[in-house]
Amino acid sequence: MLHMDDLDTPALTVDLDIMEDNIRRLQAYCDAHSIALRPHIKTHKVPAIAHMQRRAGAQGIACQKLGEAEVFAAAGFDDILIPYNIVGRAKLERLARLMHQCHLTVAADSVTTIRGLAWAAAEAEQPLDVIIELEGEIERAGVHTPEEAVALARAIETTPELHYRGVMIYPSDPESAPKLRAFLDALAAAHLPAEMVSGGGTGAAYHSHEVPELTEIRVGTYVYNDWNTVRRGWCTVEQCAQRVICTVVSRPTPDRAIIDGGSKTFSSDGELPMGHILEYPEAAIYHMDEEHGYVDISRCARKPEIGERVRVIPNHACPVSNLHDVIYGLRGDRVETIWPILARGKTQ
Amino acid sequence: MLHMDDLDTPALTVDLDIMEDNIRRLQAYCDAHSIALRPHIKTHKVPAIAHMQRRAGAQGIACQKLGEAEVFAAAGFDDILIPYNIVGRAKLERLARLMHQCHLTVAADSVTTIRGLAWAAAEAEQPLDVIIELEGEIERAGVHTPEEAVALARAIETTPELHYRGVMIYPSDPESAPKLRAFLDALAAAHLPAEMVSGGGTGAAYHSHEVPELTEIRVGTYVYNDWNTVRRGWCTVEQCAQRVICTVVSRPTPDRAIIDGGSKTFSSDGELPMGHILEYPEAAIYHMDEEHGYVDISRCARKPEIGERVRVIPNHACPVSNLHDVIYGLRGDRVETIWPILARGKTQ
Repeated sequence: MLHMDDLDTPALTVDLDIMEDNIRRLQAYCDAHSIALRPHIKTHKVPAIAHMQRRAGAQGIACQKLGEAEVFAAAGFDDILIPYNIVGRAKLERLARLMHQCHLTVAADSVTTIRGLAWAAAEAEQPLDVIIELEGEIERAGVHTPEEAVALARAIETTPELHYRGVMIYPSDPESAPKLRAFLDALAAAHLPAEMVSGGGTGAAYHSHEVPELTEIRVGTYVYNDWNTVRRGWCTVEQCAQRVICTVVSRPTPDRAIIDGGSKTFSSDGELPMGHILEYPEAAIYHMDEEHGYVDISRCARKPEIGERVRVIPNHACPVSNLHDVIYGLRGDRVETIWPILARGKTQ
Repeated sequence: MLHMDDLDTPALTVDLDIMEDNIRRLQAYCDAHSIALRPHIKTHKVPAIAHMQRRAGAQGIACQKLGEAEVFAAAGFDDILIPYNIVGRAKLERLARLMHQCHLTVAADSVTTIRGLAWAAAEAEQPLDVIIELEGEIERAGVHTPEEAVALARAIETTPELHYRGVMIYPSDPESAPKLRAFLDALAAAHLPAEMVSGGGTGAAYHSHEVPELTEIRVGTYVYNDWNTVRRGWCTVEQCAQRVICTVVSRPTPDRAIIDGGSKTFSSDGELPMGHILEYPEAAIYHMDEEHGYVDISRCARKPEIGERVRVIPNHACPVSNLHDVIYGLRGDRVETIWPILARGKTQ
């Protein structure tokens, strides 16, 4: 059996025991609180892992882009939420085709998006389920006021090709609950109650019972966890399943080591230090160029030598998955499986 | 002929007229100053574009990773410099195989790397050209002192499998010249003169004649240019050939637009604003999530509407190439060619 030391570096790996435990733990929480768990596949982009999440009890999946949904529909998923405005003729034609492959729910935050979705549903000759994207705390997309939500819900409800299902928000932590409630109350008062209330976010996940309006949560990062998750106190180092094996390729000074993974391997996402080296917890990755990770080893009692291999927990798991073609599933130090990251690079 | 408006978004494109002019301009400068131009292919990762650079007069190419060199050797390139320490058994075996496919020069900054390279050369049963990586201003990899450079040159010179060729430094702007000269003087005094002196950097490129010791320069970004290059005054907006066509998918407030390209399309590299929108020069991309670009349109007289398409000059061209499977070559607004980005994702 292939040993992890046999893998060329940088090598993207997942500790299967830790990942399985992460999947079990959140599913048990959701089951205990009767909240549906809809894993967001953006974190791993691997259908085989989503099948593990489904077998554990997940209800459907979320795919951020149509291109990801196409891959996962082809891999057997039949309940896919796209929490993203689908806009433009090329995408709407793809959406119509995809409606023949699986059950889709799509989010919208404007009448322009609604009109396009209606066109796609007419093309597909079947109704399309639509939810309204509400603006959450991060002020990204989403309708801004309860009045806008009501107007949009009515526009969906009165469009014969569409079926109004409810709402989504991101993130759905307890701090965002008052804003969510204002939206839901307005919709209920207009006789447009939300049957589906989809929340999300790894930080919010274990607080979902504090927002009882939620019928489901979309959560991605929990499957792997990452150094951002640890930094925010949402998990422990021991619960981080994704690691990148790197090689020390240079030791220019006593206090500096260069590893063969930089932003092309890890992305530039997140704060300093950029990830965490398991073998050298005192080391700090203080900068990355595309192919170089700069490591401050001044606080390490023993210093890593050229040729030594180290395992790095990345700052942000999701973009790392998008940068690699395969992920090695490790059982201890053995390679149990090699998964192609089938939905990598689906920017459209 | 396919029109750029027919492309689904986000779509990575290159304006062929601008790129051809960028290639011609730097080659003319290098020819005028008798400096060899060795394009660094990390910016485009497309063999067809490197062939255009070669036809214009470039002498060889630089590939940062062995996996890129494998792709370009297979595409007909016979003079490849890898300015990176190649470390570890798996890579050294690949290096030995690649030595049968093209002429390689490899950089090293340690005796450990030298020993590995000698092993690979013995495997390949042919000598390997080696240059010493000198530490430049950015303090990344590279030998730290002239004494170390002399010791390493001697180690290469006395290794029968290896052929000592000279040195490399990055960047090679005039400010780094005194440091470079100290290295070169020490090597010459030790009867180990550098026959090859390889510099690099898009910012340094047009100043190479101010560092007459340079025999060649490795330059990547000049082929496309990007918003970082404009920001630093190294080129004009009109000289930026790489653009990503995006669609406005949400307009949550009068002053905010969301485009369908975020860090999965552009990377998170660089300062604010994150790139430049050609159609809305007053707009500012102030944040990116993976699939969302947040645009401040408060200063725009006319505001972009949902469904509108815009062209974005990315902050940093190189990671963008690494995030896309194809690039559309535009002649005006027509798609003249579609190039697969064959060396995308070659992290190893």
